[in-house]
Amino acid sequence: MSEEREEVAGAPVATRLSEGVVDLLGVLAYGELSAFDRMAEDARQAPDLRGRAALAEMAAAEIGHYRILADYLAEHDVAVEEAMRPFVTHFEAFHVSTAPKSWLESLVKAYVGDGLAADLYREIAHWLDADTCDLVLRVLDDTGHSAFAKREVGTAVENDAVLRDKLTLWGRRLLGEATTQAQYVVAERDGLAKLIVAGSGDLSGIAGLFRRLQQSHGKRMRSLGLG
Amino acid sequence: MSEEREEVAGAPVATRLSEGVVDLLGVLAYGELSAFDRMAEDARQAPDLRGRAALAEMAAAEIGHYRILADYLAEHDVAVEEAMRPFVTHFEAFHVSTAPKSWLESLVKAYVGDGLAADLYREIAHWLDADTCDLVLRVLDDTGHSAFAKREVGTAVENDAVLRDKLTLWGRRLLGEATTQAQYVVAERDGLAKLIVAGSGDLSGIAGLFRRLQQSHGKRMRSLGLG
Repeated sequence: MSEEREEVAGAPVATRLSEGVVDLLGVLAYGELSAFDRMAEDARQAPDLRGRAALAEMAAAEIGHYRILADYLAEHDVAVEEAMRPFVTHFEAFHVSTAPKSWLESLVKAYVGDGLAADLYREIAHWLDADTCDLVLRVLDDTGHSAFAKREVGTAVENDAVLRDKLTLWGRRLLGEATTQAQYVVAERDGLAKLIVAGSGDLSGIAGLFRRLQQSHGKRMRSLGLG
Repeated sequence: MSEEREEVAGAPVATRLSEGVVDLLGVLAYGELSAFDRMAEDARQAPDLRGRAALAEMAAAEIGHYRILADYLAEHDVAVEEAMRPFVTHFEAFHVSTAPKSWLESLVKAYVGDGLAADLYREIAHWLDADTCDLVLRVLDDTGHSAFAKREVGTAVENDAVLRDKLTLWGRRLLGEATTQAQYVVAERDGLAKLIVAGSGDLSGIAGLFRRLQQSHGKRMRSLGLG
């Protein structure tokens, strides 16, 4: 259990989130907020209004997730800004190192990022107390706004081997940079590291988690016609 | 009535939207999409994570409105991109001429723009056939995400007369630029002009409409502590 009950006479039972859970929700919340920011920016580079609206809608969905996480933290007397703060520089470093240079790179990033986030939510949900697990599954339930990106990329690479190779490398770089930043984060945050070790069993459990995320990433790339 | 029924044997009754209604929904849809774009960009200039998230949430709400309008157009066999296209340059001209130079200017613009849009939705809803009226009221019902902006601006100008004067002028300029572009749009689009004349009664009806929008704008500015 990562929550402790605090009995307050006459008030609804309040729960205190553990340090690791606060960190985890902070990472997820800032991930959503920064994904919004980058997708909204990339949407401006769309070649047409249809693409621009589609990426804007993906961005807006991230904010819906952010709101769910922020409300949950607030219910537990945690300010989402405080929970997010330790992770801002890592996400910004990720986004700076993976700034898309074309519309198709934007779409691959949106699709891959959304998918990775969904995998992560799915993996971690069952490490958590029942309430937080429900929360994470609720956010997860709303992912999958990226069918547009998949269709566009699939069509573009179908008959263009050079573009396919370039975007395949791009997809690998996205995973590499995300993994690098994830490792920094875990190294810096004890509570989070403990939560992950406890959740995934042990150090080999963590290795297994990373392997599964990598495999899903590979599958996702193939579903785009890449890799 | 701005719709004509088209009976299709065995299929649900399809309705054809008049040219003016398509224009109107196109204006509203592009207004939402471009408001999303600008708010998302302005959110990056926020002084803190709380402000950034708040403006991002306003932006995301615009996309919710966009989706409602786009779906309605699609149900009537109109591609939202086509309906929006005639209005892109006017909105871009508005946004270029009103690019905020500070975080408070961004907030005033978000608050004023959201309020103007809500007033406009409220005014026009009852000019429209029952279905389209329902649609417009549904979008309207979801406005009001700007309490944050109001609070921030109100606090900032409370004890700063110089800032208050600057932002008051800014608010006037926003209304002026919006009115200018609105007049261009109406002059260019016959269907829209007809719809407005029919809806508001006559040319003096249009003048009355503009006066009411101006009055609500003034009230809104005062509620920010401006004007």
